Order: sequence, then structure tokens, then C-alpha cells
Amino acid sequence: MKETAIHPVPGVRLAAAAAGIRYRDRDDLVLMELAEGSTVAAVFTRNAFCAAPVIVAREHLAKAEPRCLLVNSGNANAGTGAAGLAACRETCRLTAAAAGVAVEEVLPFSTGVIGEDLPTDPFARALPGLLERLDEAAWPAAAAAIMTTDTVPKLASRQVALDGRTVTVTGMAKGSGMIRPDMATMLAFIATDASVEREVLRSMLEAAVAPSFNSITVDGDTSTNDACVLAATGASGVKVKEADSPLADAVAEVCMELAEAIVRDGEGATKLVRVRVEEAASEEEARQVAYTVAHSPLVKTALFASDPNWGRILAAVGRAGVSGLEIERVRIWLDRVCIVRDGGRDPGYTEAAGQAVVSRPEFTIRIALGRGDAAARILTCDLSFDYVRINAEYRT
Amino acid sequence: MKETAIHPVPGVRLAAAAAGIRYRDRDDLVLMELAEGSTVAAVFTRNAFCAAPVIVAREHLAKAEPRCLLVNSGNANAGTGAAGLAACRETCRLTAAAAGVAVEEVLPFSTGVIGEDLPTDPFARALPGLLERLDEAAWPAAAAAIMTTDTVPKLASRQVALDGRTVTVTGMAKGSGMIRPDMATMLAFIATDASVEREVLRSMLEAAVAPSFNSITVDGDTSTNDACVLAATGASGVKVKEADSPLADAVAEVCMELAEAIVRDGEGATKLVRVRVEEAASEEEARQVAYTVAHSPLVKTALFASDPNWGRILAAVGRAGVSGLEIERVRIWLDRVCIVRDGGRDPGYTEAAGQAVVSRPEFTIRIALGRGDAAARILTCDLSFDYVRINAEYRT
Repeated sequence: MKETAIHPVPGVRLAAAAAGIRYRDRDDLVLMELAEGSTVAAVFTRNAFCAAPVIVAREHLAKAEPRCLLVNSGNANAGTGAAGLAACRETCRLTAAAAGVAVEEVLPFSTGVIGEDLPTDPFARALPGLLERLDEAAWPAAAAAIMTTDTVPKLASRQVALDGRTVTVTGMAKGSGMIRPDMATMLAFIATDASVEREVLRSMLEAAVAPSFNSITVDGDTSTNDACVLAATGASGVKVKEADSPLADAVAEVCMELAEAIVRDGEGATKLVRVRVEEAASEEEARQVAYTVAHSPLVKTALFASDPNWGRILAAVGRAGVSGLEIERVRIWLDRVCIVRDGGRDPGYTEAAGQAVVSRPEFTIRIALGRGDAAARILTCDLSFDYVRINAEYRT
Repeated sequence: MKETAIHPVPGVRLAAAAAGIRYRDRDDLVLMELAEGSTVAAVFTRNAFCAAPVIVAREHLAKAEPRCLLVNSGNANAGTGAAGLAACRETCRLTAAAAGVAVEEVLPFSTGVIGEDLPTDPFARALPGLLERLDEAAWPAAAAAIMTTDTVPKLASRQVALDGRTVTVTGMAKGSGMIRPDMATMLAFIATDASVEREVLRSMLEAAVAPSFNSITVDGDTSTNDACVLAATGASGVKVKEADSPLADAVAEVCMELAEAIVRDGEGATKLVRVRVEEAASEEEARQVAYTVAHSPLVKTALFASDPNWGRILAAVGRAGVSGLEIERVRIWLDRVCIVRDGGRDPGYTEAAGQAVVSRPEFTIRIALGRGDAAARILTCDLSFDYVRINAEYRT
């Protein structure tokens, strides 16, 4: 993560507490309060198997503008059936009662172990203290409290000048692969003090999420709890009416910085690799090829070994299911080093040049298909011994 | 592999030699001679990036019935451009000249390192000796010579009584994941002494390949050189005119046994796992769900750890892209132990029961979708430290 200042967002107050839901001696519950009049947009997991909080958050969002976001780590409340839904609703009811808002104004989020019942007593005990300690400056504490297997908290912040005033966009995220023994989820919470109507906010969020959170992969597994929320408090007094604006750029940058931080902190990851596919017939085709390369265990183990293995990359391109692909037109570069041309190794390529690139902590695999003008970029990481170790460790 | 006798196939003679193409002190070249009048069917890789021998073998097969199959290990002759095609044609020409057949009657196959030029001198030197030593009993030597990273040769054999005579089906295969540092390919060669017209033979092969070689995965990567050949010499004098016959059953059994042997010998594999999806709306949907589970790195690392991680399996089912999937109707079993019911853990499930199953060297993950009558089965293996080690080892 870049060493940038994390600016508070007027109209957003946060607090974290050690509620003892699963972890001992660390914060595991966050309350995020939004000023009255805030608007909220959110996107959720596309997994058909979605957790209780995702179901309830969608329901509440359809009925009201949220005032409180409640996030717990340690327990995903997923695969918990009717009991999980009831527990989730109870945590919303407790929050609404303590905060003096309607139950529909509370959005619940959970991340952690799948398939274990969520206890509600820790929420009841922790909520009064959380409400007392709400603070605009508590972003770092909140970012740490929502971590599960993450090794670092993930925060990003931007400020832009609009209408002669300063508008802030600040966000936090958690995620490190889908799961470590049953630890589920990518969550991201981004807020701005601009005033933005929900539909415009939703457009901004969707535009920002597509190239960032929806273009990353650690292991190809999506979770049951994924959620990304964008809130606009309006506290700056600046109204933004168009999705295409400097505010949208700032939101996109914050999302991209958080998404990169997630891949960098991917389970066992030692490298951040950008897979860029160009000259595709459509963006869908470009994403399909990029994801096939970005998911290939053979490519990912070669990256771990700093092996510029062009045969594996080309073979992954070849099996990506692109109808009528002419392999003779495909060219591939590692950063600026051309490795494949005319269906084979570039005549000017040397192993030394390729290896110099893939030994870097960050680099780009660029693939030109020679079919059109569409492009896509996916962020991925390598596949290391530690990925297997982390995910094979027996659940404790 | 089962300890069954490997029966020679009248009309098929083989020989193996240490040609020194890449390896030292081991056989790396096989010649398989088919009696005059034999028919041959073959299926090849669907990878758009296909190797020179695949291109040439397809060409020759379209022009003539093959008399000689030439298989080398150590060099895949893939990603080698025009020079690779020329080298491949030259090895066919050398074989045709030495064996006294037309060049179109030679089918070439290569497996090994991608992107290195194939030397033809070793072929020229080895061919006379190969032709002298052709022998019906040389299946085991041939199966060993086509290995690359395989740890065991793979052979299977069946005999069936037809028209009061004994008909034999014998096959060999190689493959162990797609590649180890650049080692490409699954190859399989199956022969029978029945007399079968090419179209019928082709139907038998396609029916046998679908549930076997086309339903296995070690790492989801398909290779540039995959090929499976079925030859019928007619030497038994028994004519088979229908694709639906006891001979087809024997071919299917040989293919399944070889396919299982490949997964069992998968790179780093410690377990053979059958993923069976039932109650799907279509076979395509069943395969899609089965492959999503069978490819999931999170499921595969859990299997390696003997962790009956139902949350990961259910999450993989949920993200398989089945439109309208009702997760509440999904049920999952590990062998006979029900682990998931009604969208969550089965109430009667115990970790001890689940762990007892996934600690076995072979077991079945059975998934019922509650949507229809279609089913599919995919064979996979676990993802271990050794998979990463094997594939991350730098190329030597």
C-alpha cells in the first residue's frame, strides 16, 4: 500500500471493538455511522450460495438509505440456514435500537468461518461502547478490525477540488484470496463527503468496481460474502450530479489501490502480476483470455519460480476458448520484452531478458491477439508453496 | 494401475529405442507398426496453439490409413513455427523411406519440452534398429519410452469373446498434469485386432474418450500436443459393424483405466477424487459444476489436507454459473456421508465421518442439484506442495 494520508470523511464516524465473536485479544466488530441524508450504493457477490448478511443487506438497501453499517470478522454467517438469517436480523435489530434508527437503516456484513452459528450476545454487549466511541478518525482501527487472514490493513484515500472546495474519498477493504480454512470474503467500504444521488453513486461504483475488484484473482474462487459499498454523506456541501466526474476518478483510484492491495496480500503471493490483453474482438473475449492466463496454475507456479515460461502462457491463451484464434498473430510481452511472435518464441528473445522481468515484484504480461481493438486487464499473483500451506492447514 | 495382463494385439508390432533426442540413457522413441488393412481413428487437442505433429498427423490422417505411428518423448515440437513443421515432415519422410510406406501413412506424435527445435538426426540413426526389432510383445517398453514426467508407465488391456473368437483391446498412455517445466501432453494409443470401419471406430473412440480422457483434470491446463489414437488391425478376423458392441465396452474400459492412471499419477497427486454431479438440468450444466469443483484450488488444497471442507465445495457449486440455481435444493455427499442439505451443513453430519472419507486414497464427491435428470463425472486429484514444487522447479 502506498504511504498516503488517510483522510477522514466528514459525515462518516467509525468505531471498532473486541467483541469476542471468534478471535481473542483483537478487534472484530466495526460500526460505521453515516450522517442523515447520506446515499449508499452497493454491489454483492454473484455466488448463488450467498451468506445471510448478503440477503439481509440487499433487503434493507431496497427499503431505505442506510445509516449504520455493521461489520464483524471471524464468522461469515454463511451456510447457516434459517438460524443464520435470524441471527443476522437480530444483530440489525440490536443496532437499530441502540442507535435510534430503523432496522432497515442497518446493513450487516460478516466475514470469517463458514458454517458456524453467529452468536448475537457479543453484538449486544459491544454495541453501547461502539456508539459512544464513534470517531471520524477511526478508519485505520476499523480497517484492522475487519481483517481475517489479511496480513496488512488496506486503506486508500484521495482528495479532489470541486466547486472550490475539497472533497474526500476514503476506503478500506479486506481480502486475501477467497478463504483460508473457511475464512470467507472480500469486503470494501468507501465513502465520500460529496452529495450524490443513489443512481449516480451506483453508476460510479459499478464503473470503479469493474476494472478493480471485479478484475482481480488470487485463486479464482469467489466468496459467499463479497460486498463493496460506496456511501456519499453530502457533508462537504458539494453536489455531484454526473457519474462522469473528477469524483468518479477518485473513487476509481481508491478502488484500484485497494484491489491491488488485496492481490499483493493474496495468500502466499510473492508477486503482483498484471495480465493485459489487447487487440481482442470484444472486451468479453479479452477478459476471457486474461482470466485464463491469470488462473492457470502452470503459469502461476512458473511466475513463483521467476521462470519466463512463454510456452505455458501461449498454451493458456490457446485453450481460452476464443473461436477462430490464429495463434500465428499472437504476440506476448513481459513488460517491454517480446517473448512470443508468429506462434513461437520471438527470434530476438533471450531467457536472460525474460527472467529479469519475471524476477521483479511487479510486472505486466501483455498479450496482443491481432483480432480487434478491445482490451482488458486482470490483476493476479503467483502460486507458491505458502498458498498450499495456508489452504491445507487443518481448521483449528 | 490394476495388475492385469497386457495382451499383445495381433497386427500391431512395436519397438522402442534410446535415440538421444533429449534424455540420456533411456528410451525416447517408439515406432508402432499397424498391419496392412488397419483402420485408425484419432482425436486431438482442442487447444488453438497446437504443435507441429498435431498439424501433420491431422493432414496425413485425412489422406490415408496409417501404417506407422512415430512417437518421441523429450521434445514436444510445439511453438517451433515453420522449422518445427519441416522437422516433423522430415521424421515422417525418414520413417516412410525406411519402412517402405507412403509418407502420408506415417503419423507423428511428440511430447516433451515446448519451444525447442526438434533434431531429426536422432530419428535417422534410430529408425533402422527400430524396424528390425518390431515385436508384438513390446507394449511395456513402448509405454515406458513415451513417459516424460510420469512416474509409472500406463497400460491397460481387455479381451472379449466375439463370434466365438477372442478379440483383444490394449492401450498405453502418458500424462501427468499438462506439463512440468515445459513437458507437454497427454498421449494415448489403443489398438484392437477386430476389423472395424473407420467411421464406426471413430464413434467408438469418441464415446470412450468423453467420460475418460475428456473428463479428467489435474490442473485444468490442456496441452498443445494431446492426442488419442484407436487402431483396428482386423487380424482376429472378427468384424465389428456397430459402434454399440462389447468391443466398444472394452475400448471404453481401457480408456477409463488409462485416464484414471493419469490422474493417479497427476503431478503431486496423493488422492484420486471422483466428482459426480447429478440432478442437473443438462449434461453440460453437470459438467460445468463438476469441473468448477474439480478445478477449485481451495477444494483441492482441502482434499490434500484431508479436510472435509463442505463450505468450499458449496461455494464452488455456487459460483459455477448455473442460472437460477437454488442453493437450498443442493445436497452433497462424501462417498455415503451427507455433508450438505438445505443450503447448509447436514444436521446429522459429523466432522469425524467426513474426515474418514477424505482421508481415503480414493473417494467420490457427489453433488445433487435438484434441477433435473442429467449427470456427469469428472476425475480429479488434490493440490499438494509437490504440485508447486514440480511446476516451479526451474527448467534445466
